[in-house]
Amino acid sequence: MASTRFDYDLEHCGVRRALDLLGEKWTLLVLREAFYGVRRFDDFSRALSCGRGVLSARLKTLVAGGVLEPHAYSEPGQRPRDEYRLTPKGRDLNPALLALSQWSERWDPPPAGPIALVSDRRSGLPVTAILSSDPQAQPLSLSDILIAPGPGAVRLLPKA
Amino acid sequence: MASTRFDYDLEHCGVRRALDLLGEKWTLLVLREAFYGVRRFDDFSRALSCGRGVLSARLKTLVAGGVLEPHAYSEPGQRPRDEYRLTPKGRDLNPALLALSQWSERWDPPPAGPIALVSDRRSGLPVTAILSSDPQAQPLSLSDILIAPGPGAVRLLPKA
Repeated sequence: MASTRFDYDLEHCGVRRALDLLGEKWTLLVLREAFYGVRRFDDFSRALSCGRGVLSARLKTLVAGGVLEPHAYSEPGQRPRDEYRLTPKGRDLNPALLALSQWSERWDPPPAGPIALVSDRRSGLPVTAILSSDPQAQPLSLSDILIAPGPGAVRLLPKA
Repeated sequence: MASTRFDYDLEHCGVRRALDLLGEKWTLLVLREAFYGVRRFDDFSRALSCGRGVLSARLKTLVAGGVLEPHAYSEPGQRPRDEYRLTPKGRDLNPALLALSQWSERWDPPPAGPIALVSDRRSGLPVTAILSSDPQAQPLSLSDILIAPGPGAVRLLPKA
């Protein structure tokens, strides 16, 4: 099989192309935050504790790649700023991120259980990223699913 | 939703934990080659054209993370070396890599079509990475699928 590998040029391979855009740890963590509903620069910065220069560069990459989209907003008395929303292309990354996350939970289970539970908004059944060849399968999109804190979720703030 | 985000500590989040192990472009490209059947150091090096130091570090990370496993082999007249095989944990990354690759092909289709076609070994039907909540769904594993060159595959060598 290894010999077959070298018969072909894999530069256009989807993994390679996806990594050209996403293949950097901070970039995927910015996306994770976007899936958790974070939109503003200061919130990304607070969530990730990464340098503002790194964050700014990653957001620019994701906007250029069509994964995030800037939308202007203004707070009273401040200059207009951009917030960053997932585009349809960005939302469609959900299966890949969930597949990665569930793989980690299967093989290195977090000490107190999953921190997030993903369920079907309609049926309440758990949602899994799988490989399927079933033409009748009904793939779920981001709007079909619900992400809720799981048993391993650690609250940072005392309950009000 | 963004406010809920900050109620919880996400350090144990599966995406974060997966990226602690895999979150580097070369690491995922090493894995891609492993899925294409590459096992030996010189073949990884040839396939990726990355520095041997980088490659050696990435292989070490993947072995330490339980994703690749070294197996000794010897060529006649040479000292024994290790080849690197996917472990069950490594093979289980297939849905995540395929989800990433198919996302790229949906949104930035390669000029001449997909370079690889993934099909169900039994039915021949195309295989897709999807989110499902169907308790009856039959997830396919790596041994259930066939990866063959697609219309966009570029042969490097003339046919013999």
